[in-house]
Amino acid sequence: MKVTERLAALRALMQQNGLNAYIVPGTDPHASEYMAPHWMEMSWITGFLGETGTAVVTMERAFLWTDSRYYLQAEFELQGSTVELMRESDIDCPTIPQWLVANMQGTVGVNPEMYSVNAYQGLRSQLEDGGLCLKSIDLIRPIWTENRPDIPMNKLLPYDEKYAGETVENKMKRVRQALQEHRADAVVIAELDEIGWLLNVRGTDVDYTPCVIAYCVLEQNRCTLFIDNRKLDESGRAWLCSKGVEILGYEDVFAYLRNMEAKGVLFDGNRVNEALFEAVNPAIKRKVNATPSPVQVMMSIKNEVEIAGEREAMKVDAVALTRFFKWLEEEALKTPQTELTLAAKLREFRAMGKNFTDESFCTIAGWNANGAIVHYHAVPEECAKIEGNGVLLLDSGGQYLDGTTDITRTVWVGDPEAIDEHVKHDFTLVLKGHIALAQARFPKGTRGNQLDILAHQYMWQEGVTYGHGTGHGVGHYMGCHEGPANIRTDNNTNPMKEGNIFSDEPGIYRAGEYGIRTENLIVTVPAQNLSARTTGETYYEFETITLCFYDTRLMDRNMMTQGEIDWLNAYHKKVYDQVSPRLNKEEAAYLAEKCKAL
Amino acid sequence: MKVTERLAALRALMQQNGLNAYIVPGTDPHASEYMAPHWMEMSWITGFLGETGTAVVTMERAFLWTDSRYYLQAEFELQGSTVELMRESDIDCPTIPQWLVANMQGTVGVNPEMYSVNAYQGLRSQLEDGGLCLKSIDLIRPIWTENRPDIPMNKLLPYDEKYAGETVENKMKRVRQALQEHRADAVVIAELDEIGWLLNVRGTDVDYTPCVIAYCVLEQNRCTLFIDNRKLDESGRAWLCSKGVEILGYEDVFAYLRNMEAKGVLFDGNRVNEALFEAVNPAIKRKVNATPSPVQVMMSIKNEVEIAGEREAMKVDAVALTRFFKWLEEEALKTPQTELTLAAKLREFRAMGKNFTDESFCTIAGWNANGAIVHYHAVPEECAKIEGNGVLLLDSGGQYLDGTTDITRTVWVGDPEAIDEHVKHDFTLVLKGHIALAQARFPKGTRGNQLDILAHQYMWQEGVTYGHGTGHGVGHYMGCHEGPANIRTDNNTNPMKEGNIFSDEPGIYRAGEYGIRTENLIVTVPAQNLSARTTGETYYEFETITLCFYDTRLMDRNMMTQGEIDWLNAYHKKVYDQVSPRLNKEEAAYLAEKCKAL
Repeated sequence: MKVTERLAALRALMQQNGLNAYIVPGTDPHASEYMAPHWMEMSWITGFLGETGTAVVTMERAFLWTDSRYYLQAEFELQGSTVELMRESDIDCPTIPQWLVANMQGTVGVNPEMYSVNAYQGLRSQLEDGGLCLKSIDLIRPIWTENRPDIPMNKLLPYDEKYAGETVENKMKRVRQALQEHRADAVVIAELDEIGWLLNVRGTDVDYTPCVIAYCVLEQNRCTLFIDNRKLDESGRAWLCSKGVEILGYEDVFAYLRNMEAKGVLFDGNRVNEALFEAVNPAIKRKVNATPSPVQVMMSIKNEVEIAGEREAMKVDAVALTRFFKWLEEEALKTPQTELTLAAKLREFRAMGKNFTDESFCTIAGWNANGAIVHYHAVPEECAKIEGNGVLLLDSGGQYLDGTTDITRTVWVGDPEAIDEHVKHDFTLVLKGHIALAQARFPKGTRGNQLDILAHQYMWQEGVTYGHGTGHGVGHYMGCHEGPANIRTDNNTNPMKEGNIFSDEPGIYRAGEYGIRTENLIVTVPAQNLSARTTGETYYEFETITLCFYDTRLMDRNMMTQGEIDWLNAYHKKVYDQVSPRLNKEEAAYLAEKCKAL
Repeated sequence: MKVTERLAALRALMQQNGLNAYIVPGTDPHASEYMAPHWMEMSWITGFLGETGTAVVTMERAFLWTDSRYYLQAEFELQGSTVELMRESDIDCPTIPQWLVANMQGTVGVNPEMYSVNAYQGLRSQLEDGGLCLKSIDLIRPIWTENRPDIPMNKLLPYDEKYAGETVENKMKRVRQALQEHRADAVVIAELDEIGWLLNVRGTDVDYTPCVIAYCVLEQNRCTLFIDNRKLDESGRAWLCSKGVEILGYEDVFAYLRNMEAKGVLFDGNRVNEALFEAVNPAIKRKVNATPSPVQVMMSIKNEVEIAGEREAMKVDAVALTRFFKWLEEEALKTPQTELTLAAKLREFRAMGKNFTDESFCTIAGWNANGAIVHYHAVPEECAKIEGNGVLLLDSGGQYLDGTTDITRTVWVGDPEAIDEHVKHDFTLVLKGHIALAQARFPKGTRGNQLDILAHQYMWQEGVTYGHGTGHGVGHYMGCHEGPANIRTDNNTNPMKEGNIFSDEPGIYRAGEYGIRTENLIVTVPAQNLSARTTGETYYEFETITLCFYDTRLMDRNMMTQGEIDWLNAYHKKVYDQVSPRLNKEEAAYLAEKCKAL
């Protein structure tokens, strides 16, 4: 079936259902960062295989909205499809609701499983303001019947309490208490990471994130997991049974919600899909839209066992990184290397580590100008060869049973005499911001948007900035990107809480030249050694848990304060002390050289 | 009429109108910071004369909610009134809606003139959630007939374009364009500062803020000012007439709104009162609640003439401050002085300045422990004598025809040998934050809550903070506190805009010992001398416009970086260069000594 035939089939169904337009977004029912092929409806209907995009189909025309990263790919892949490209990064490009309001009348259809409640309601109010109606209807399922990939059918894996640090019973108890505070007695959970956290289960259904595909409804007196039977082996079933979790089929969730009796139902409007919301028994009048949900907040607060696990995973990760950088400096360039071979080698080193299960995201290895492309991912057809002198930006991470890592180092490859002053200047600006954020202290209640300027301040003095967030939350053997708090310039009302783990990753990107980013993970802990004359609130500080040296050859010492140099030297001492016992003699000597005091 | 008689009269009216409770807030119809006695309904019904409080009257009981600053005063003033004190700073004190929901049934009445639209709607939804009804009705006017002070009847004063820097015609044109962007063709303005800005008029109806009491409605083809006839002399009437402003009586605004024809009406839900909103012609379906209103945003962006005027006012203010501090150091203590006599003397010096019309707020002079009380205002019965050694916190400001000033200096009085190390430490922590904020650079779109930590960062490292905002907006010959942007830890979505003026005023308060605060005004200007390798956005920085030395004897030089010392020396040089030409020889010599490089 070609795209034009698919479009024809869709239009036939649109006509039958009285729809004038149909939107197919590039999302899935679980608000996942990494989607299973089963849900790639936007790609199926348009032929465009990029990660980000939304299709709009009318009776006469079809469109794909995507951003500038994908313009070239979209132009190529849309050839012959009749689908027209809408360049959404261009200043004069209308949004989808704007275009629909300006060009259409009648009714627009969408599959409500693919929209969060809040996104759906936002879309509806924009369309209704413009005189259009929005209708919930899935028109892709009836036509995508041939060769549609299955929903991943990997096994549910019980997750040992020795890693999770809290029993399922206790987590359920805490969530139920939180429901009471919201005057609700049931919560609908669609996010795979929240289900994994609540039930101490993991899986391999999703790339890079150890999740299993399911829905969950927790009530005051029962807990039901909606999951395909084939995903449960004996151990999985026994685990759920031992926790009193009832099991129903994945799609049974809709019927269950229609019949559920409760006084109040809580859901996270940003993360629960509209189809679930629409299914909720209309007799239940109290629907609490809690963003973030109490489950997400609890999950983001790592307990002592989780943090101890993260510290251990960091040591294992550091051994792999040390070996990789030693290999890169001493061995790698004796044979041809590309961005991809480096990434593969790093994965090899990581895979030797205890408890390693996967990478936590697709490694970004950016050589010189490629490092300046923030969302760069090398592909075999056109990845850079590592040759001559230059700047290598390496952003990577591992999933270990006891923790998730995410680290960026920018290093010089080649003759250190050839290091450009601009590179040193930019590297040091980034480092100063990175250190300032790592050293922050702040009272309870402080939000990430208050802290962000610590990382930006030195480069902003020069009129230089970067186009990404400064820090994201990180899960515990779970998603590498996690809410609800973060460290960004944007307003975010969620304060940093004790036990939250964030990245600290400022950068500078010089188009056509190089990219620099320096990233550690930091955990929010009570501040130590406050003044005896403290005014008495609870203060937090960050403990840096990533354990890998920085390339001191790229630092301009004259730009650094003594306080920054002291921090750096203490950090390098900690790295050496904690990592060297796990290295052989040669590796330890290499690390000692890298960790030498500045 | 005693309070008990007033309460009885109110209850009789409540019964006639079927009300079970009546709320009397301590507000006025213009959301003013300083209220005219005419509107002090809360004080009239309770006998409590403090500035902050809300009365709730039921058929059986009466209550006053107020905060801990006023507990003692309230206990004293409520004696014999039957009004019970609700201590709203206490952790277990219910809010008024909570108390009403828990204790009452039926209908609660309020005067909608005393509530902003948003406050009223918030109250209503809380009451309705709890099964109560809210009714708009003014029951104080029918009973407060005897000795009620009039609304102030001072004259409207045309404000010269040579100070305002923009014609009324142009301001109206810009506001009308903004209305179109909001798809509205009329705006209701209840805030006295916005009316003053739009029509280039001032007045003396309000303490410290040169406003005239009125309402204004601007439409695409007309502009109407609702003002008592007695406030218009020939020049005022001629001014309004020349600008095409139609004049109606103050209370005619309600009838006008009822009959107004428009496609859409814009109002600032935080600043326009509910009575105006309720009066709007029900045929007008499109009511745009814009917070902040475009008028408020435009007013906060000072034009070049206004900023030049502020700079001039700062010089005049600096002359007064220099003379005051010289007098304080050399003359004052030869005779007995108190916090109040110092404040009076400072006003004398200011009043000698060109274009001075008033203070911009009631001077806070806090000697030693009194300086630690953030909202301290000395009263004749119990103000401190200035004796021995100690710390004086002096927060004051002037209204000049060409600008508004607001400055805090903390100085040592007495033997400098006696300065405590703790005082120097705290003073320097405050100064470092004050300088860091003054030196900030940031891209367009940055909000004050992102900048705030620059002022807090050094004291937060020690677990020390202050309980007030870091910076507020400041008007131009207008309110000393102005929105919509500010510099606080709280979320505020309004970014800093070019031409915004803010205070920069961190502090440290040691209960029972002393208070330290250091405050300058800063204006947001395009950043100068960015790096040649800027990534190209628009960047802003602050220009410090206050011109008064800091007490260098209170600084611990060892805590300061060379960058901070350089900033301080450059600032002191600027102060001397700009102020000394206006001083006599002795005064200039005094200032030179104070501005000596550190």
